[in-house]
Amino acid sequence: VIRFLTSPLADRQGIQLKGVAVSHLDKPREVSVPRLTDEPLELIGDPDVDLIVELIGGESPARDLIQAALSCGKSVITANKAVISRHMRQLFDLAREYRVDLGYEASVAGAIPVIRVLQGFQGEHITRMTGILNGTCNYILSRMEEGMDFQSALSLAQEKGFAESEHELDTGGFDARDKLAIVSSLLYNSHVQPSEIPCQGITELNPVDLDFAAKHGLEEGERGYSVKSLATAKMSDRGLELSVHPALIRRDHPLASVRDETNGIYIEGELCGPQLLLGRGAGRGPTTSAVVSDILRLAKNTRRGVIDELPTLGQRIDYLDPMSVKTAGYVRMNLRHTPGSIAEASRILGNHGFNIEDSIQRRRFKTVIEGCTVIPDIVTVEALPLGTLSRGLQALQESDRILGDPFFVRFEE
Amino acid sequence: VIRFLTSPLADRQGIQLKGVAVSHLDKPREVSVPRLTDEPLELIGDPDVDLIVELIGGESPARDLIQAALSCGKSVITANKAVISRHMRQLFDLAREYRVDLGYEASVAGAIPVIRVLQGFQGEHITRMTGILNGTCNYILSRMEEGMDFQSALSLAQEKGFAESEHELDTGGFDARDKLAIVSSLLYNSHVQPSEIPCQGITELNPVDLDFAAKHGLEEGERGYSVKSLATAKMSDRGLELSVHPALIRRDHPLASVRDETNGIYIEGELCGPQLLLGRGAGRGPTTSAVVSDILRLAKNTRRGVIDELPTLGQRIDYLDPMSVKTAGYVRMNLRHTPGSIAEASRILGNHGFNIEDSIQRRRFKTVIEGCTVIPDIVTVEALPLGTLSRGLQALQESDRILGDPFFVRFEE
Repeated sequence: VIRFLTSPLADRQGIQLKGVAVSHLDKPREVSVPRLTDEPLELIGDPDVDLIVELIGGESPARDLIQAALSCGKSVITANKAVISRHMRQLFDLAREYRVDLGYEASVAGAIPVIRVLQGFQGEHITRMTGILNGTCNYILSRMEEGMDFQSALSLAQEKGFAESEHELDTGGFDARDKLAIVSSLLYNSHVQPSEIPCQGITELNPVDLDFAAKHGLEEGERGYSVKSLATAKMSDRGLELSVHPALIRRDHPLASVRDETNGIYIEGELCGPQLLLGRGAGRGPTTSAVVSDILRLAKNTRRGVIDELPTLGQRIDYLDPMSVKTAGYVRMNLRHTPGSIAEASRILGNHGFNIEDSIQRRRFKTVIEGCTVIPDIVTVEALPLGTLSRGLQALQESDRILGDPFFVRFEE
Repeated sequence: VIRFLTSPLADRQGIQLKGVAVSHLDKPREVSVPRLTDEPLELIGDPDVDLIVELIGGESPARDLIQAALSCGKSVITANKAVISRHMRQLFDLAREYRVDLGYEASVAGAIPVIRVLQGFQGEHITRMTGILNGTCNYILSRMEEGMDFQSALSLAQEKGFAESEHELDTGGFDARDKLAIVSSLLYNSHVQPSEIPCQGITELNPVDLDFAAKHGLEEGERGYSVKSLATAKMSDRGLELSVHPALIRRDHPLASVRDETNGIYIEGELCGPQLLLGRGAGRGPTTSAVVSDILRLAKNTRRGVIDELPTLGQRIDYLDPMSVKTAGYVRMNLRHTPGSIAEASRILGNHGFNIEDSIQRRRFKTVIEGCTVIPDIVTVEALPLGTLSRGLQALQESDRILGDPFFVRFEE
């Protein structure tokens, strides 16, 4: 970003870098800047400064600094999904109050201009958005599809610099959840809090799941399935359904071709039909691209004396009760390798109204849990409400023939 | 569009339909409008009208009406690629002069918001854009990939309403060329005229080509190739290279998954990396979606008293001489089925510097031309300048052992 701000292109647009606030003044740096300080409020308070670019990450102190900047009448550009997802309504109000801009294109899906694109679809009724919004998860799942286990794939992602050493924000689905909150807030002009979105990570997926996915449907002439971590918003007469979860998608689904650290956003609108956006979701270049695009727009706005119209996010929306969402999928559980285990599992599932389609026991993935030999059993079931599914899994867990946590993975239509 | 303009959503945005000008007043219509006239200048001259939506198609009288509207101080929304591609610089100047807006999102790739997206990439150096911009061609090629010949696929496209009865605008590549002119003008802020872009249609492709593509590279472990009609802009130190042409692309290329009437735009930028946009490129819903998105933006601009900043298109760019562009590909020619024909063809190609990689004669596609039995021969060659290729094809054509026109198809990297 600094390289851009000190480039001839920025100069031609009348953009001038006034200073940079950092935590550690004496850290060695690749670029030289006109005014390095560890007092961000110095820059925010400077009457010569029009725009503040916030690239800290995490809620604190980023949120306070963004608020301070807006309240000083400075426009702000941020890549901070934690702050935007939790406080967008209040920050948009503040920006409106002080007649300044707030650019946050870099907070979702890196270089993919998803904020710009969605804002242009205001005349559309978007019935569905499904995104692959976390590059780390997608990279790990791409490696697992090639046969790696979760831990090795995670280590490789960490080596390559995609995953943080504290990887749970990514692999637990929380990073994608923040982004989904931002995108669905824009889609339906209502502030969706990340905490309202059910969230399931990819940490429990193992080679059994990937192996099952690759082979599923082949006998029916399909091309097999991919496992993806999806962030989904669906709007129907019954309300808005939001969720982050791993799911099996058909290999011919447009999102199945989103591989490695790429992000993808699939949208369905009543007029526009299906749309797909693919691109790099993270990393130095893509994030810079999104930040620079915001800087150019806001600088131009400042010069022309106009501001963007930020959404009010004041619409009331009805959420669909997550437990009432019906979904097909499969249950994967570790059965003790003793006679009667399959019958016991089938009995429990039947009692809970699960209509079993296929049941596949995979001896190849035999393992030992709590000193007992177990074999993973995969049972595909017809669509059931998540509440019913959850009670069924609970009952399975209570059986002493089933060890470890039974796990449910959805099929995405 | 009329349904939107008379909807509660439009009303809430303060948008009111004032009238509609048509050619034939007494044609039966699905919708009723407040003021139907066959005098467009009546509406353009009405002081109560702020926005004119032009959805005529073709250069005349659309261009004159757009000019008249802008000169009357009305903002204009158009889906007219013929007018925009040829006159965008002059129309943008006119809009600037009269301080009004010009929206043309619907002129390229239907519902895909390509204009919006590209305008946001102003800080990017876009090194490459490759688009599948004509749904009719892509639909025909998708059917040919399944074994149909060109004529049957074209008839099916016409039955489905994709292709006009005069199909040459689509199949000759001219529609895609207009769109490429618009997109590359925006990318490099310089008015590119459609007539400056070399253009090759898909009418000469036949089942031999599709069959060859599907099998090419399989032996080397690749997944085969698709044939697509591509519109390409590449920027390098040597200049801007523009072209519309059919090409073979690897099945794992992001654009290979663009099937049927879908459009796709692939962009590579120095910071953002590769990006892909997919969606419906034509038809009632997608075009309406793009027009409505422009109406909403321009109506909001009008209310706020601001106008969009249209590009000046005044940048000077160097074009790469098309004949100097180097490309690999294959020559397909009909050889008389007599001894010595292959030797003759090889001799001619060798004399012209073609370095032959594979030569495949396909007896299965034997046919009769001018009373002689011919067998198509496909010769893949290393990258050569298009000028050299063209001279080689000319020499082949002059040989009496080669009947019909030899044909060259590129491999897209």
